[in-house]
Amino acid sequence: MKLRLGLPKGSLQEATFQLFRQAGFKITVGSRSYFPAVNDPELDILLMRAQEIPRYVNEGVLDAGISGLDWIRENNADVVEVADMVYSKSTSNPIRLVIAVAEDSDIKDVSDLNGKRVATELVNVTERYLRDHGVEAMVEYSWGATEVKVPHLVDAIADITETGSSLVANKLRIIATVLESSTKLHANRDAWEVPWKREKLESLSVLLQGALRARSRFGLKMNVPEDVLSTVLGILPAMKQPTISKLVECDWVAIEIILDEIQARNLIPALKSAGAQDIILYPLSMVIP
Amino acid sequence: MKLRLGLPKGSLQEATFQLFRQAGFKITVGSRSYFPAVNDPELDILLMRAQEIPRYVNEGVLDAGISGLDWIRENNADVVEVADMVYSKSTSNPIRLVIAVAEDSDIKDVSDLNGKRVATELVNVTERYLRDHGVEAMVEYSWGATEVKVPHLVDAIADITETGSSLVANKLRIIATVLESSTKLHANRDAWEVPWKREKLESLSVLLQGALRARSRFGLKMNVPEDVLSTVLGILPAMKQPTISKLVECDWVAIEIILDEIQARNLIPALKSAGAQDIILYPLSMVIP
Amino acid sequence: MKLRLGLPKGSLQEATFQLFRQAGFKITVGSRSYFPAVNDPELDILLMRAQEIPRYVNEGVLDAGISGLDWIRENNADVVEVADMVYSKSTSNPIRLVIAVAEDSDIKDVSDLNGKRVATELVNVTERYLRDHGVEAMVEYSWGATEVKVPHLVDAIADITETGSSLVANKLRIIATVLESSTKLHANRDAWEVPWKREKLESLSVLLQGALRARSRFGLKMNVPEDVLSTVLGILPAMKQPTISKLVECDWVAIEIILDEIQARNLIPALKSAGAQDIILYPLSMVIP
Amino acid sequence: MKLRLGLPKGSLQEATFQLFRQAGFKITVGSRSYFPAVNDPELDILLMRAQEIPRYVNEGVLDAGISGLDWIRENNADVVEVADMVYSKSTSNPIRLVIAVAEDSDIKDVSDLNGKRVATELVNVTERYLRDHGVEAMVEYSWGATEVKVPHLVDAIADITETGSSLVANKLRIIATVLESSTKLHANRDAWEVPWKREKLESLSVLLQGALRARSRFGLKMNVPEDVLSTVLGILPAMKQPTISKLVECDWVAIEIILDEIQARNLIPALKSAGAQDIILYPLSMVIP
Amino acid sequence: MKLRLGLPKGSLQEATFQLFRQAGFKITVGSRSYFPAVNDPELDILLMRAQEIPRYVNEGVLDAGISGLDWIRENNADVVEVADMVYSKSTSNPIRLVIAVAEDSDIKDVSDLNGKRVATELVNVTERYLRDHGVEAMVEYSWGATEVKVPHLVDAIADITETGSSLVANKLRIIATVLESSTKLHANRDAWEVPWKREKLESLSVLLQGALRARSRFGLKMNVPEDVLSTVLGILPAMKQPTISKLVECDWVAIEIILDEIQARNLIPALKSAGAQDIILYPLSMVIP
Amino acid sequence: MKLRLGLPKGSLQEATFQLFRQAGFKITVGSRSYFPAVNDPELDILLMRAQEIPRYVNEGVLDAGISGLDWIRENNADVVEVADMVYSKSTSNPIRLVIAVAEDSDIKDVSDLNGKRVATELVNVTERYLRDHGVEAMVEYSWGATEVKVPHLVDAIADITETGSSLVANKLRIIATVLESSTKLHANRDAWEVPWKREKLESLSVLLQGALRARSRFGLKMNVPEDVLSTVLGILPAMKQPTISKLVECDWVAIEIILDEIQARNLIPALKSAGAQDIILYPLSMVIP
Repeated sequence: MKLRLGLPKGSLQEATFQLFRQAGFKITVGSRSYFPAVNDPELDILLMRAQEIPRYVNEGVLDAGISGLDWIRENNADVVEVADMVYSKSTSNPIRLVIAVAEDSDIKDVSDLNGKRVATELVNVTERYLRDHGVEAMVEYSWGATEVKVPHLVDAIADITETGSSLVANKLRIIATVLESSTKLHANRDAWEVPWKREKLESLSVLLQGALRARSRFGLKMNVPEDVLSTVLGILPAMKQPTISKLVECDWVAIEIILDEIQARNLIPALKSAGAQDIILYPLSMVIP
Repeated sequence: MKLRLGLPKGSLQEATFQLFRQAGFKITVGSRSYFPAVNDPELDILLMRAQEIPRYVNEGVLDAGISGLDWIRENNADVVEVADMVYSKSTSNPIRLVIAVAEDSDIKDVSDLNGKRVATELVNVTERYLRDHGVEAMVEYSWGATEVKVPHLVDAIADITETGSSLVANKLRIIATVLESSTKLHANRDAWEVPWKREKLESLSVLLQGALRARSRFGLKMNVPEDVLSTVLGILPAMKQPTISKLVECDWVAIEIILDEIQARNLIPALKSAGAQDIILYPLSMVIP
Repeated sequence: MKLRLGLPKGSLQEATFQLFRQAGFKITVGSRSYFPAVNDPELDILLMRAQEIPRYVNEGVLDAGISGLDWIRENNADVVEVADMVYSKSTSNPIRLVIAVAEDSDIKDVSDLNGKRVATELVNVTERYLRDHGVEAMVEYSWGATEVKVPHLVDAIADITETGSSLVANKLRIIATVLESSTKLHANRDAWEVPWKREKLESLSVLLQGALRARSRFGLKMNVPEDVLSTVLGILPAMKQPTISKLVECDWVAIEIILDEIQARNLIPALKSAGAQDIILYPLSMVIP
Repeated sequence: MKLRLGLPKGSLQEATFQLFRQAGFKITVGSRSYFPAVNDPELDILLMRAQEIPRYVNEGVLDAGISGLDWIRENNADVVEVADMVYSKSTSNPIRLVIAVAEDSDIKDVSDLNGKRVATELVNVTERYLRDHGVEAMVEYSWGATEVKVPHLVDAIADITETGSSLVANKLRIIATVLESSTKLHANRDAWEVPWKREKLESLSVLLQGALRARSRFGLKMNVPEDVLSTVLGILPAMKQPTISKLVECDWVAIEIILDEIQARNLIPALKSAGAQDIILYPLSMVIP
Repeated sequence: MKLRLGLPKGSLQEATFQLFRQAGFKITVGSRSYFPAVNDPELDILLMRAQEIPRYVNEGVLDAGISGLDWIRENNADVVEVADMVYSKSTSNPIRLVIAVAEDSDIKDVSDLNGKRVATELVNVTERYLRDHGVEAMVEYSWGATEVKVPHLVDAIADITETGSSLVANKLRIIATVLESSTKLHANRDAWEVPWKREKLESLSVLLQGALRARSRFGLKMNVPEDVLSTVLGILPAMKQPTISKLVECDWVAIEIILDEIQARNLIPALKSAGAQDIILYPLSMVIP
Repeated sequence: MKLRLGLPKGSLQEATFQLFRQAGFKITVGSRSYFPAVNDPELDILLMRAQEIPRYVNEGVLDAGISGLDWIRENNADVVEVADMVYSKSTSNPIRLVIAVAEDSDIKDVSDLNGKRVATELVNVTERYLRDHGVEAMVEYSWGATEVKVPHLVDAIADITETGSSLVANKLRIIATVLESSTKLHANRDAWEVPWKREKLESLSVLLQGALRARSRFGLKMNVPEDVLSTVLGILPAMKQPTISKLVECDWVAIEIILDEIQARNLIPALKSAGAQDIILYPLSMVIP
């Protein structure tokens, strides 16, 4: 009983392995580099290009995989989206597939693309989008360096961007957003109907999302004199009950709470002012609410 | 009072430093790169090739060292094996010194090696093994690339392998296992009889093994309503008493337990189903039972 | 309301980002590599050469920055030293700006430098020091490789050293210490008078120093039978009250304490001998006393 | 008047630049890395993926380009093949697109591929070949690592190979050769009809092929006494008239000849034996017969 | 009798060594990396930062050096410019020190810089230029990344540029050219008056410039029937007499000529048409007219 | 009929390939990296560690190889030294195996080594040398970093050195030279008796040494008016007859000569002064006297 799971090779590989590692799965890539070992006898991991994973999940060659929504759509893959997994972005902007033209181009919106040539790595998604907008354009597959093709080789491109800065640097102007994308744990529809596979995938999803949640949180402990306990509790964020335990040695309580790293910045000075002592923060591996 | 400790330079170096770091020893390699600094005034660390450490431990130039059992045997080093330290393997297979021949060789077992030529980095161990099996063969030292020497340069090799995949890739067939090896903290026999040295080594052993143990474990905390406490306790692995503390604020208890990362996978969904809340897992530095 | 903060680019950059990361600030360097993103809307980070940060803090172009005392002095920057931040040293020796000459030079002390040529990256600091000692020498700016300039190009150098080993390797002899330096979080005097800026800087200082403090400490938990509690408490370092909580299940207590990594080495065997069980150590992110 | 020429970016780029350099064209890639500078005002060079060059040559976006015959076919590019340019191979084997299956597969020849799945980077070429052989198979685009896809993901692959060794290493068996390929200087049909463009391309072709020819040849000079001249001439390869010039100083002649590097090995000892003196060989930049 | 020669360390080092290598000087950098060995007992080479070489040449610590005119001026070095050596540029544009401001800045020309702040690596040159133009500005030394300092840290920069593309990428606009620079072999004035030093420097200059000249030239040889000799000679560039030698074997002559690589492109097809045969081009090491 | 030739893998590999390339042999290392391809059907090349080549030549597994004299001696290899090949040194110092001790050691000469411990990579050579000098010492194999072993691990080392600078840097003092070494083309004694093998080896030797000789020489051509011919000839080095050919066009002769690169430095200005024109120097591939 093994779940066949496709993980992305290349730029996402190390980040993916680290996320799994944090959730307790040790993946090691040995001499047969596309079939890594993992310390879970129920998992059979294949490394492959992110672009191809949804295709093989769709066809049932894989039970599940991790790849972007963009490639799920490009492959016309009819799969179950088990979980959204945001672990490879550098900003809080969404990842988007946008259509861009030269800054000084006459093309102002999508309708101006009629009869034009568009280069993209996501031919199917782009063609469908243009067709839906009543535009007939020549969409051609680009093997890379898509952003420098305008205006010498093509009139427009459809390219993935997070900050838009690479588009700006190449003097391109965005005229439309084709798709917002994100990384998905996704499963084959038949595999999803097999109870132990679904259970395994749901467990994986809980652990991986627990690991992601832990990345922006700290555990916090502090000792608080009983007479200022209510003050301290008033300061703490309302969302969660803190764990309070009475200490043996007198009129102090120990308080534990899980804190978002952003909250920590303002809270810690406030707690100290209120009389808390011995404040420590410790890193977390998983947080499951 | 300084314990002279030999640590392996090269491929194991970074992994060794990380293990020590996890156990609270910061080792920094400065400009005199074979004599790193360490934040423990009782340790004097020398970096050297793993192959040479047992020799110098045996001769008392070092009080203790970390190296493989294979090199302890190759150096005929009569040392005290203080602790087994498995921190550099990528699978759960043992590390073995095996004798291998070409896939299509006529040599079927060790007895067929009479009069043959065998290349190996471990000449003494291999010669002793062959002699013990009544075989007379020419065993020659190999400076590397041992696996490609069959069949052009030698008839067989004795080589270290963990997964065997490199042997397979070179179309070699294993005919015998000479030795199972693992990394050892080992000490000079005289040094071991000096009380403060033995104490220091035992303390080191406790800390390093505590660090290794921690690598596959999580700390887990959760809040549980008292009325489902017994259910939850029934789910937890029997091996260890959980730490249960009553919370101030009513009918809840906080439970803490140390968990193997493999157990965590099945346990966490089960705990959630049973009514546990606010489950967090946190990483550990050392676990000492 | 944004605090403009200058962080050092280059060799210190990664260490600085890791320290901020540990304190809950995620800094990502995107395509505009001198203006990294950070998950704190109140911070505006600029990466620049450590040498220039104090100048721009002094002039108010930056509100605050992180750089060495040596460069604060070299820039004649009249700034507020908010906190000392020792996170980039490899030994416990102070970082010093020293004057060194060839091992076999006739120059014995500073007064012998009259009329000599001195190369240094810190021209202002060196000139001021020599003037204060009544010495007239030609101090020239060195773009690097300062240590090999003696004796062919100059008579002496003023160079930064931590262990002195590079000076020894170049057969140089130290004749004077101009300055002891360390890394400083420092602020512009006007910015410091703005309440929200000072508050933000003090909060930053608490978090970053909490992070530094955590680096040499562990959290420790253990279970102790009540009848040996006083023995165990007697072993623990006196400096801090441990957190003791009574366990539900009988005559045991759970003890938590924060421990220096150096203390841990001797304490752990002692605690085990005294009857403590299930000792675990876990890493800390911040420790705020 | 500029000829727009597409050169391959990536693994072939450096070899291409060296070939041009040898023929007297200095190409430098500056900050706009897809538009290198060249010391020929009649050339406008664009760097792009080899896969895309024939497409843009076909469409007239480029006047000419350098790419493989495989990609010319894959793009269905109807272009003029100006010259064959063999400068990137490591053996004398042809570069072939082959269909390969697992060593132990039941598939013996192309006809067995009916209903099977085939992965390839050259979908059009492969589909056309299979159709011509009356085979209906699912041909899917592979983003890379094609060789490891058999048998887990597909039944067969169509992949480029020169030595076949990578196929052997992946335990694959070749069942058919789809195409023999080589690197081509190729031109757009309309551009070819423009006289100055054709002339420029023919000149380029002469120079580049002259440079390639020079790579396996030496210039040889020697002094020979007149009385052994006929013996020496008898030894020289018949194909080319040597340049013989009478020396001022007596009964000696100087002989110059262009020699293949392979011939040189046997010829040089023979010439020496026959009485030639002062033999020197010098490298060539271009050889134009 | 040794001439002390300073060569630039860093980005120019490899190009400098190659130029010397081409002229017959083998420079090897051993373990004392600032004092390379050279196969000329009359040379004593010191590697140092290009910025510092003119200073030490000026002061007589070095007899001569290779550095840019910009750094000669910055150091106010009163030296003899022995030869211009253009070996490190990627285009035919001059290298210029320019003053640049933000694209959208109000600063239109140099006179607008009054009271502004200018960052540069060439403080002296820039200050002198501004003073000469009657401008008072604060010129500050920049340790690097000068181009990103506008507009956040300074109002303008004075920076070295060859193509201007980096300025454009940083959205800067050039308002003035302070200096055109190039690489110079330059000598100390006193050293130049010592006959053997001047002779050595002139010889060096001849060889290095001969090597530079050879880089854009080919040697060409061809065989020509006597009856078309005048036609062929008519095609050859007028600048140089070709070397014509009558061949022994009949009515052919051998012609040799040195050709600029740019001329070669058009000449070779023309020569072939005119009846020349066996055209070969060979690389040159030095060309001395 | 293939000659099996062992070439050194590792640090010498690239230099060896370049030397062969210069002599007309193209060696390419493909996927089976120890068995490179070569464009000579009579050669079968094996790459292996330099240390092992003489052993396999001695035993006849290889017909010939390239390795150092030190390793020939260490392997007690009774081989034919076909040619000395100096292509991997950075200075003109000989490569020596020396015995060195700590600068401040009491050991003054070899006789003081009685009863001491000596580390070396060349155990056999060192033991033989010590035995020949009547010294009994413990000689142990060192896997590397030999120079830092004194004085902590051993009393002396026997190590290879060219400049001695690494010994100085490690504060070692040379007390004896065991061996002067150089790189040798060497052959198996039986192979040497086979005529075609000897012929092939002698041919290889001629070509490779011709290539080495060419590295420090230039071809020189110039045009000289007849009336200064004798002056010019008087300047040329006596060792070789120049090739003089009368030019068609009047009273000029063309002179060709092969020149050592060191001679070129002084000769070129002298030739110009004497009236020579159009002096060109060109690189050589092989020079066979």
